[in-house]
Amino acid sequence: MASPTDGKSNSSFILNKPHDVTYQDRPVPSIEQSPHEVLVAVNYTGICGSDVHYWEHGAIGDFIVKDPMVLGHESAGTVVGVGSAVDDLKLGDRVALEPGYPCRRCTRCLEGHYNLCPLMQFAATPPYDGTLTGFWKAPSDFCYKLPDHVSLQEGALIEPLAVAVHIVGKQARVKPGQTVVVMGAGPVGLLCCAVAKAYGASKIVSVDIVESKLRFAREFAATHTYISQRVSPQENAANILKEAGLESAGGADVVIDASGAEPSIQASLHVVRVGGTYVQGGMGKPDITFPIVALCVKEVTVRGSFRYGSGDYRLAIELVSSGKVAVKKLISETVPFTSAEAAFQKVKTGEVIKILIAGPNEKDV
Amino acid sequence: MASPTDGKSNSSFILNKPHDVTYQDRPVPSIEQSPHEVLVAVNYTGICGSDVHYWEHGAIGDFIVKDPMVLGHESAGTVVGVGSAVDDLKLGDRVALEPGYPCRRCTRCLEGHYNLCPLMQFAATPPYDGTLTGFWKAPSDFCYKLPDHVSLQEGALIEPLAVAVHIVGKQARVKPGQTVVVMGAGPVGLLCCAVAKAYGASKIVSVDIVESKLRFAREFAATHTYISQRVSPQENAANILKEAGLESAGGADVVIDASGAEPSIQASLHVVRVGGTYVQGGMGKPDITFPIVALCVKEVTVRGSFRYGSGDYRLAIELVSSGKVAVKKLISETVPFTSAEAAFQKVKTGEVIKILIAGPNEKDV
Amino acid sequence: MASPTDGKSNSSFILNKPHDVTYQDRPVPSIEQSPHEVLVAVNYTGICGSDVHYWEHGAIGDFIVKDPMVLGHESAGTVVGVGSAVDDLKLGDRVALEPGYPCRRCTRCLEGHYNLCPLMQFAATPPYDGTLTGFWKAPSDFCYKLPDHVSLQEGALIEPLAVAVHIVGKQARVKPGQTVVVMGAGPVGLLCCAVAKAYGASKIVSVDIVESKLRFAREFAATHTYISQRVSPQENAANILKEAGLESAGGADVVIDASGAEPSIQASLHVVRVGGTYVQGGMGKPDITFPIVALCVKEVTVRGSFRYGSGDYRLAIELVSSGKVAVKKLISETVPFTSAEAAFQKVKTGEVIKILIAGPNEKDV
Amino acid sequence: MASPTDGKSNSSFILNKPHDVTYQDRPVPSIEQSPHEVLVAVNYTGICGSDVHYWEHGAIGDFIVKDPMVLGHESAGTVVGVGSAVDDLKLGDRVALEPGYPCRRCTRCLEGHYNLCPLMQFAATPPYDGTLTGFWKAPSDFCYKLPDHVSLQEGALIEPLAVAVHIVGKQARVKPGQTVVVMGAGPVGLLCCAVAKAYGASKIVSVDIVESKLRFAREFAATHTYISQRVSPQENAANILKEAGLESAGGADVVIDASGAEPSIQASLHVVRVGGTYVQGGMGKPDITFPIVALCVKEVTVRGSFRYGSGDYRLAIELVSSGKVAVKKLISETVPFTSAEAAFQKVKTGEVIKILIAGPNEKDV
Repeated sequence: MASPTDGKSNSSFILNKPHDVTYQDRPVPSIEQSPHEVLVAVNYTGICGSDVHYWEHGAIGDFIVKDPMVLGHESAGTVVGVGSAVDDLKLGDRVALEPGYPCRRCTRCLEGHYNLCPLMQFAATPPYDGTLTGFWKAPSDFCYKLPDHVSLQEGALIEPLAVAVHIVGKQARVKPGQTVVVMGAGPVGLLCCAVAKAYGASKIVSVDIVESKLRFAREFAATHTYISQRVSPQENAANILKEAGLESAGGADVVIDASGAEPSIQASLHVVRVGGTYVQGGMGKPDITFPIVALCVKEVTVRGSFRYGSGDYRLAIELVSSGKVAVKKLISETVPFTSAEAAFQKVKTGEVIKILIAGPNEKDV
Repeated sequence: MASPTDGKSNSSFILNKPHDVTYQDRPVPSIEQSPHEVLVAVNYTGICGSDVHYWEHGAIGDFIVKDPMVLGHESAGTVVGVGSAVDDLKLGDRVALEPGYPCRRCTRCLEGHYNLCPLMQFAATPPYDGTLTGFWKAPSDFCYKLPDHVSLQEGALIEPLAVAVHIVGKQARVKPGQTVVVMGAGPVGLLCCAVAKAYGASKIVSVDIVESKLRFAREFAATHTYISQRVSPQENAANILKEAGLESAGGADVVIDASGAEPSIQASLHVVRVGGTYVQGGMGKPDITFPIVALCVKEVTVRGSFRYGSGDYRLAIELVSSGKVAVKKLISETVPFTSAEAAFQKVKTGEVIKILIAGPNEKDV
Repeated sequence: MASPTDGKSNSSFILNKPHDVTYQDRPVPSIEQSPHEVLVAVNYTGICGSDVHYWEHGAIGDFIVKDPMVLGHESAGTVVGVGSAVDDLKLGDRVALEPGYPCRRCTRCLEGHYNLCPLMQFAATPPYDGTLTGFWKAPSDFCYKLPDHVSLQEGALIEPLAVAVHIVGKQARVKPGQTVVVMGAGPVGLLCCAVAKAYGASKIVSVDIVESKLRFAREFAATHTYISQRVSPQENAANILKEAGLESAGGADVVIDASGAEPSIQASLHVVRVGGTYVQGGMGKPDITFPIVALCVKEVTVRGSFRYGSGDYRLAIELVSSGKVAVKKLISETVPFTSAEAAFQKVKTGEVIKILIAGPNEKDV
Repeated sequence: MASPTDGKSNSSFILNKPHDVTYQDRPVPSIEQSPHEVLVAVNYTGICGSDVHYWEHGAIGDFIVKDPMVLGHESAGTVVGVGSAVDDLKLGDRVALEPGYPCRRCTRCLEGHYNLCPLMQFAATPPYDGTLTGFWKAPSDFCYKLPDHVSLQEGALIEPLAVAVHIVGKQARVKPGQTVVVMGAGPVGLLCCAVAKAYGASKIVSVDIVESKLRFAREFAATHTYISQRVSPQENAANILKEAGLESAGGADVVIDASGAEPSIQASLHVVRVGGTYVQGGMGKPDITFPIVALCVKEVTVRGSFRYGSGDYRLAIELVSSGKVAVKKLISETVPFTSAEAAFQKVKTGEVIKILIAGPNEKDV
């Protein structure tokens, strides 16, 4: 019997060391011994800031690329093989891939926080290969069927949207009527604005240093915008509150940092109201100057946000499916697999918001 | 009819400006127009770090002593007058005083976080006078009856214990079986250890730079202690985990900073486990170098803690009454009202843990 | 100086005993001794099921009308007098009235659950008079300014909407993407559907026994409807899940009973999924046959819902102001003050969804 | 090489149909193909009410014993075989067995509520065999090492203690200083009292209809007891509050039903204070008469409690290890494996609190 992978390429986009990438045809993974897994032909993959960071620097913190590693982890694909115990997916199903596989046995996994699993195997985080490849093998419960009217290109955006859902819903716990300030208008910041809107926020203030990004933010989801100035965090905070009419409220209910930038984080603690919530979603310098007494006397609740967990993918798909988050608007361009390196270059220079790389067997580019 | 205040002194211990204190006999407050208030003869008052800070510097952050202000806010007393609408207190009742009076009408008050009320009138926080005085007027619901077997001296310790209850119970939300690290072994740090024990913590690690304080902590409530070294926060954190047998757990469930010291706060973020909780209870420099990426990738929950709120005083009294927290052990000495300034000096030099100042009419010293 | 109340009627609609009502001109309340209160001219008042119940039966449970009592508690009005300490309202402001005044001093009030205050003085709950009157005196923090584009008629609907906000937001804690079943399509059930939609529910199933109500529900906010049958609760539950495509999910995430009807409550426990939430918002027979083992083995979380609390009015106004809940659609008719009894009759027969009674001085009917 | 199971009996105590039990030597399970599992020689097994119910009736609700089934699920044992991937247990380790194995892949498992997994395989719940056998195979993360000073007999009590931990800690969420009423003084009710004490409850009222049980409860953990009378639920509730000095508080903060009895459940809703919590832990009749309006107007939070979940076993062991819960006192007797049926008889007649059955290879009886 012919296999759906016969004659198909499993070409993979591999980082050898900083700025040194190659294509290599890898063996197609087998699911024969994996009753709960499926094999997925990758259709489209977005590029994340972390991918670019590995490409440029070969490491993020303690995660160092020592051996050649396939890049990419924002993907959607089509099921081409189904393990013997899988009963909720079938050949031809179009799926968004959740690209991290936890151990399912540790304390964190059992208590429902698998994103914190110390044994997590996450795509394109060394030493684990990523999804810029032809075929990807994954547990069926980490492959989420896309509704018919959600495209595979939109499916590739489910990953960054799940990041935003985790930040806004699970960690910031935004409630209807709350006021939300989002620092940074990159893809995750923009998606946080849109998710905050879907969660019923009454005011959503997007803050960045680039005016064109803020223009996009306002069209996309923000109700107010503010261009960060080279002034003290207190002054930027006061300006934000003034801009958004939040002075009498004494601050925003929720502040999300999706920038990782030191001045933004500092301003966050001055923008948030007493008893409010601030979530750190962006990563930058490991140590920064931080207004700790403001955190203390205002009884701010702070939460870090790391990737996504149970339910986040399902909700991300629901938000796209229901039209509440128009992820399509973020897609600047789709390029063929052979243009992967050029796509990385475009993300680096900031000339695109989100660029998709078609899978090696994908013809619709 | 003779009034209980007849012939009694309302001598008050007043800060004019840094290091300039005087005694002055103030008019006894009247509760005639205050149906919900009581008049309390102050028996004992403890000294808090903030009292000493005002005494030395005349200000804490934006709170500046501009006019002469009565010091003190950790007090217990005896009811000597009862407003017309008060039905839960009577003359002679011995009470712990909660010394902050919120507006009861703002959003924070109505939602149950009156400690965050922007109109709060808090004793010995300028411009409001404190409790180092003869007679104190307060709403009856902020005066908590002491059980017969709890002494008035212990009653004066309810205030700092309520601070610890708020930190450990409300903000850190310690649960039975959890492991807790407390940075700083001053009065609040020590009480946090004791409250953590009462909350069922399985391991309680007290960390300080003074060996004698740690010796006391271990006798008082800690299961482990660690003397902070002049090494990196990561190294101090690793040592703490080793000392307490928390290496395999990857960190403590809860870390409380009751020191306000930069190195302690830094170590806190490295000591806490992924998904753990860290509470900032101590105040020091307004801005410090802070490991923000550790907070983010470990999805730490951080909460500031400020004073105390609904239920904290009642629980503090219950913990003393049931014998779970032996606040008495913290009382180094009790001095007469006329020795107030000398008492401040002793707190400053650190030669006492907690010193009580008797009220101007109190004979049992 | 002329007073805004000069020459105005304070006519009040008074229940003497069941089915015995009269109009009486009462003295206009004075706010002279009430620095934190305002005087409000009532413009419109809706009729609640409880008003009708008192009118018909003279009692609800232990609350018995012993002395003549003014009816009504769903009102909006215009500020005509301002206490000396009020700084957030001014003459002419149009406000929604929150008609229950808690003691602000008990444990429940201080912890932020003032709706549970045992000393609550609630309009048209004996022995307290209601708002079907000319002028109403209230604490300024219980009068909520309406935005310019929200009409006073809509303002009278804020009260029942706040009930729904409390049920859906505070007690059921609906989150985006959740599936919600609402039992009962009366005004509160309909508003619960609308609030669930505003909270991001992905499916909202309205259940009732009257087809016309369900037709309205679907136009108003529900995504699915089901006419309750005279079959077992299990069978009705199975039908509901089938109708809404919730069979594979094994039940709804949230079920709200806004009917108080025994069969609905029984079906609720069979409709909710394992680990789901069911909120009892409607009141009917005090004791019913209840599937307690289903509650136990499914680990259902159940919460009662009673009136509304901090923040509920503000959010209700925001939902109307932002267009998310079109309360206007519920208003069947507005009648003059002199037609109050006829309006009660119409609510009783069910020929209107929500009828408004204009205030005695209101000309716009 | 000799295997630890060589020459050992795998005799199993099997229920064929109601009151028809036999012993059968079953094949020893193999862990060769199970890298994450261990083989455990069962040392001691307690008898649960559900075991007795199956023995007497052959079914509990929809769970019907159709084929012969090994009984028992409260066991401790000794590791005699270790799967290739297990690194946290070794031969000879003494362990408490958590006897339910979830799928680890469904929504409930991934969100951390594996006790609600629809694919759960639970010991002695048809069609799954139980632990009254010689050797038991289990995932290593569901076998919890006992500290050296905790005996294997105590280890067999960890299962019912985990039930109580789940009820008191996870579902009732008892906090220090709260008042707790526990309906029913059987093993689970008694353990709920002890766990409530460990969680810092200030008053713990044990309620039952048998005076000897209440005597035991008071010695074991309760601060107050009450013998339920044949009066209305309201009257029993009033008596309980009077007995425990909870009248002025208006009710208990937390009420736990560990009886499943209709009158107890009814009284529970009248004993709990406004805004309080009531947890249904016991199982009896599927449908009962229930005071639904009391639940509604008091805004009671109700939660069902079913088995135990993540962390419950660890905390149960910690509570025994630290001496906070003296489970040993509950053990009335230990009998040899061959006396299993007689042991069931003794549980049925109520002449023992907890009886242990030694494993077929256990000599210490």
